[in-house]
Amino acid sequence: MKAVGVIVEYNPFHNGHLYHLEKSREAAGADIAIAVMSGNFLQRGEPALLSKWARAEMALKAGADLVFELPYKFAVQNAETFADGAVSILAASGCSSLCFGSESGDIDKFNFTVHLLDKHNEAYQERVKHHMRDGNSYPKALSLAFKDLGLGEDGLDLSKPNNILGYQYAKSVHSRHRKLELLTVERKSAGYHDEYFSSETIASATSIRKALFSEGKVLTDIKSYVPGTTLEIMEDYKKTFGAFHKWEMYWPFLKYRLLQMSAPELKEIYEMEEGLENRVMLSAIKAGTFHEFMESIKTKRYTWTRLQRACVHILTNTKKEEMLPQPKSASYLRLLGMSEEGRIYLNRQKGSLGLPLISKLSSSPEEALRQDIRAARIYASALPHPQRQKLLEMEYTQPPIYLKGSRA
Amino acid sequence: MKAVGVIVEYNPFHNGHLYHLEKSREAAGADIAIAVMSGNFLQRGEPALLSKWARAEMALKAGADLVFELPYKFAVQNAETFADGAVSILAASGCSSLCFGSESGDIDKFNFTVHLLDKHNEAYQERVKHHMRDGNSYPKALSLAFKDLGLGEDGLDLSKPNNILGYQYAKSVHSRHRKLELLTVERKSAGYHDEYFSSETIASATSIRKALFSEGKVLTDIKSYVPGTTLEIMEDYKKTFGAFHKWEMYWPFLKYRLLQMSAPELKEIYEMEEGLENRVMLSAIKAGTFHEFMESIKTKRYTWTRLQRACVHILTNTKKEEMLPQPKSASYLRLLGMSEEGRIYLNRQKGSLGLPLISKLSSSPEEALRQDIRAARIYASALPHPQRQKLLEMEYTQPPIYLKGSRA
Repeated sequence: MKAVGVIVEYNPFHNGHLYHLEKSREAAGADIAIAVMSGNFLQRGEPALLSKWARAEMALKAGADLVFELPYKFAVQNAETFADGAVSILAASGCSSLCFGSESGDIDKFNFTVHLLDKHNEAYQERVKHHMRDGNSYPKALSLAFKDLGLGEDGLDLSKPNNILGYQYAKSVHSRHRKLELLTVERKSAGYHDEYFSSETIASATSIRKALFSEGKVLTDIKSYVPGTTLEIMEDYKKTFGAFHKWEMYWPFLKYRLLQMSAPELKEIYEMEEGLENRVMLSAIKAGTFHEFMESIKTKRYTWTRLQRACVHILTNTKKEEMLPQPKSASYLRLLGMSEEGRIYLNRQKGSLGLPLISKLSSSPEEALRQDIRAARIYASALPHPQRQKLLEMEYTQPPIYLKGSRA
Repeated sequence: MKAVGVIVEYNPFHNGHLYHLEKSREAAGADIAIAVMSGNFLQRGEPALLSKWARAEMALKAGADLVFELPYKFAVQNAETFADGAVSILAASGCSSLCFGSESGDIDKFNFTVHLLDKHNEAYQERVKHHMRDGNSYPKALSLAFKDLGLGEDGLDLSKPNNILGYQYAKSVHSRHRKLELLTVERKSAGYHDEYFSSETIASATSIRKALFSEGKVLTDIKSYVPGTTLEIMEDYKKTFGAFHKWEMYWPFLKYRLLQMSAPELKEIYEMEEGLENRVMLSAIKAGTFHEFMESIKTKRYTWTRLQRACVHILTNTKKEEMLPQPKSASYLRLLGMSEEGRIYLNRQKGSLGLPLISKLSSSPEEALRQDIRAARIYASALPHPQRQKLLEMEYTQPPIYLKGSRA
């Protein structure tokens, strides 16, 4: 059985994801599709709309065959570490290819750019440092350095968010010598960050989330843009847990924690930069909402998402000592869900998986999963009782979601 | 001007407190009454119903002339440390006497018992240790040891809560050589722990709180038992902040914090005893409410109030290193409120106060007050926005409450 891997967040799963999943399977000539998906907190430093279980179910019902959790250690990270973790999981799960969506759609440009930047690495890094010294954020500095060296002229536009991610995937595959063929699918119409719906059936996850949280909007307003299975799962989630998760729900807890902790404790938190602590603590006292808080701590030097990730780390009490040095490879495959085909594939692969497979929490050493479990606990914390308890306990009791019956 | 001191929590201020305040003034022949009052968290390890500002106002309107905050370092403590802190503040504020309510009502018995226990200290301590080894809580061991030595026969019943507190006050005055005359007033009718109203106008604070939080009860149901000024302040508080504070409001935050922290971090918390951590962390995962949590962690060895105090310390992130060794004396007088007479008294005493007077937060070194400020922040944290912000900011901006006009 041939497997293609995709790297996803599905927040929530929409028609663009469906297109990408189908095209990936096609481009790879794959029998099954394996998704490595961020858990409850995402790369942009946000809680996912729905829990990883609900999102895994969306993926399975729309055609994914296996869903593995991208551990917290990689998920709430910059693009480079995110890519390293995700690629290592796809490689370990036996995928023969990785297919990502990009604005470019031309895989040669990715491979070319990786080789080019590798070759000019010294000059490139020097330019990156230079632009950071000027007060630019890291992603901005990367993009400026890329321009300085005239590397963008051959066509890969590294100011586009999906091209950046794709580049990181490609770089990780090459530099870590992963046995994965690289494939890319051009993204359909809606831009990654588009805030408003821009076509009849394809809308960015950003615009879907925006619609969900807009006043007067109801869940069915997004129905043109998501598969029916997504809508059902979302309706069910709302009924069961009362709300979709968003930062403002966690703000009372982030604020409480910041009001409670000392500056030296804050310094221990991962991604809390030297000199940022005092502004963060003062803003925590004064800000009434998460948005106010973010507005009052932002600077040119740090991107909004970088600061949001730091906030997630404060919220989850994730420390430098447990995150550094940044890992290059995951150490387990946590299975969130499988289709019938996925189950068969796993059975066949059992002996040759590159990492230990974890499908039940109790049977596995808790230590390795400590961060993911903690993230799941904190993710549930913002719900009222008894929903909080229900979601919290799923982390311990939920077996991998199993979609019975063959798709064909 | 002659001042009598009282040690109080006023949670809330009721007719029994009014009686005690008037009798104290009378017994001491005092011109003014000085109350040292627990801040936002109380000796029993609970959040106060209303903030320290609202409770200080209750005290002033019912006849107290000065209200000082008993710092967190002493307030959320066992009876002995609580007494040491409160007595040190009354001594520093220039009181000539301390008058406490007791079941006994006979001051000679207190003085006699202090001398007796001091004389037989070695045997007494040995018996205390013996009873603790048997798994008894500390207060229980004290009471059993007292009985073992036949010391209770001369009349002071140290199983009564107000006698215990009074004994600790008397012991602190004697052992620390405080220049305070000891006086006691017999408590009227209602027992300290009585859960139901037991007379026409006097009810314990416990029964009043119970009534407040009982279903179907309204604020005016307690009006026979509290001065009109208390009722007004409570009505106003409820209107302004939406609720009276209780543990269940803080439970989501305590739970969140416990789900977030590591066992070694929990060990650093003051009053977290060796071996209790694992039960506490496991119970935090499983308990849906604060009450369930307390039920699942309680043991014979630790009293309920002792465990509640540990919970307050977890909630406020109060560590062993900042609390040990247990202090014997406060280091500042934080003024919460004053009457006209209180203001005149303070002006006269200015040069001879035994500790620095703090009446504005900005003008004082924050470090000394760090714990009290943190407690105030956490106390506000459980309210929704914008009430949370309003209460939080009072800690920084509220000047001492000043009751204009002479009482006479």
